[in-house]
Amino acid sequence: MVALTNQDGGILRKETFATIVSSCKETFDLCCGCLMQFLHEMQAGVEDLLGVGINVPGMYDSENEILIKAPFASWEKIGVKQYFQKKLQYENIFVENDVKNCALGEKYFGHGSKYKSYVWITVSTGIGGAIVQNGQIIHGSHNLAGEIGHIKVEYANPRKCSCGEYGCLEAYASGTAITRAVRHRTRQSPAFRRAFEEWGLSADAEGCADLAKRGIRDARSIYEQMGDYLARGIAAVINLLNPQVVILGGGVAKSMDLVLPIVSGRIGDYVVEGLAGTPIIPTALGYEAALLGTTALVLDKCKGV
Amino acid sequence: MVALTNQDGGILRKETFATIVSSCKETFDLCCGCLMQFLHEMQAGVEDLLGVGINVPGMYDSENEILIKAPFASWEKIGVKQYFQKKLQYENIFVENDVKNCALGEKYFGHGSKYKSYVWITVSTGIGGAIVQNGQIIHGSHNLAGEIGHIKVEYANPRKCSCGEYGCLEAYASGTAITRAVRHRTRQSPAFRRAFEEWGLSADAEGCADLAKRGIRDARSIYEQMGDYLARGIAAVINLLNPQVVILGGGVAKSMDLVLPIVSGRIGDYVVEGLAGTPIIPTALGYEAALLGTTALVLDKCKGV
Repeated sequence: MVALTNQDGGILRKETFATIVSSCKETFDLCCGCLMQFLHEMQAGVEDLLGVGINVPGMYDSENEILIKAPFASWEKIGVKQYFQKKLQYENIFVENDVKNCALGEKYFGHGSKYKSYVWITVSTGIGGAIVQNGQIIHGSHNLAGEIGHIKVEYANPRKCSCGEYGCLEAYASGTAITRAVRHRTRQSPAFRRAFEEWGLSADAEGCADLAKRGIRDARSIYEQMGDYLARGIAAVINLLNPQVVILGGGVAKSMDLVLPIVSGRIGDYVVEGLAGTPIIPTALGYEAALLGTTALVLDKCKGV
Repeated sequence: MVALTNQDGGILRKETFATIVSSCKETFDLCCGCLMQFLHEMQAGVEDLLGVGINVPGMYDSENEILIKAPFASWEKIGVKQYFQKKLQYENIFVENDVKNCALGEKYFGHGSKYKSYVWITVSTGIGGAIVQNGQIIHGSHNLAGEIGHIKVEYANPRKCSCGEYGCLEAYASGTAITRAVRHRTRQSPAFRRAFEEWGLSADAEGCADLAKRGIRDARSIYEQMGDYLARGIAAVINLLNPQVVILGGGVAKSMDLVLPIVSGRIGDYVVEGLAGTPIIPTALGYEAALLGTTALVLDKCKGV
């Protein structure tokens, strides 16, 4: 997704296209072409921009400006900033992990106007997080802070996670994990399988949320388990950081009316007395969180305190 | 413990006496009397001090300067700062939770000269923690950040913790928990009970550490379990914060040669790839960590950035 925004987060131009997984350079070139086209349409040039903000998935080393690893595409050790600087012949390129940018987006265009210290959690195909303290992202020693998706939430017969470890939150509460649970249960329960067919839903996390809201027991049970695990992970964050608020985004944001009451009902069992009331709320930015996050990144780098 | 120190953490005078659990005011008065005696011996007055730093156990509300609760003594809602200010007729009184002060002590007089972002963990009768980010303590929304002792490390048939919840790190890896495990096992194993008698050791956490170092299998097994649970708790901290280092203090510091290799051997199972090498080291301050922490608190408040 490439967009041109103003400094208030208003989207002037936007285009979405598929990532060319086999080639990051082709993907980057597509992005650059798209941006140049937008600027041309506005009769502007890169010199009119405050900056260019870029989301990268996976581990980004912001000290050395290297994308260490993007697991979904096996992109490794890529100098993203340098590539765009050269291609666009422009200095003000800023690159950061997409989840951290979501948290920054919230600071400038969402709940950040009300809260200075919060934790952002993306629940999507995977689970990621970012910690904001007094308006500043906590990067950690290797820019790896916020790995809430790999906090352990199960120790007895733990499931294997895509990271190679066992019992991670991501293996139990991500969209991928829910879809896996759905497939497992539809194999065992013909009635559950038929429910998806009857309502014309695909047998995945989103379809399951739909059935759960319609009161289908197997679907509710999957989300109750997912919500319990999510509560375990969020509780660890609350116990450690005592944030003003926990903000949830990502695909699960669409099913927030289903997930949030379950999490709220379970969190009291896992947090210290007095912190059970820590608010857990959906992002104010919806699907655009990561996109607005890049605008926020530019603002933060160019104008931030 | 009351002491007079210089600004380099040098202890000029020190006295230790038992807390009068039944009366915080009598305890405070003892402290004040002791301080005045020290000053008298040095031919000085309170006006010669940079400040007075005070450790309080339990939850301290540093915004309203109220000790909310000291669980060990059922002291509740006490205006510690105000009391000392009145009693000593002196303004520069600074009060903070003892664990947070330990972390500050490390900043000024210990590993803090090398590390700016670290997590301090006290493993003593209970387990507490404090998070330091760029040299600043993270207090959290209610000054409750750092409750690592109540992160859940067991979900299947979890033990009840003194906090009322189940499965907390403190219920598995604190000195109290080890002593409980020792008593449980000595009831089942006469040989284990005899080992304590033979070596003239008391059947508690410290005695068990001694036996473990001598190769007694039951004792080793208790510490191996404790170390595994400690690794689970520390891993949650590392995954979330990616600190430069984790510093351990408290009573367990005495058995660090026993505990650290166990924790280091287990941590890889619980942290994300690439963070398994996060150093876990003993405090540089030994038994004086909390005491030097009060000196650090005064320095931080009066001269800190």
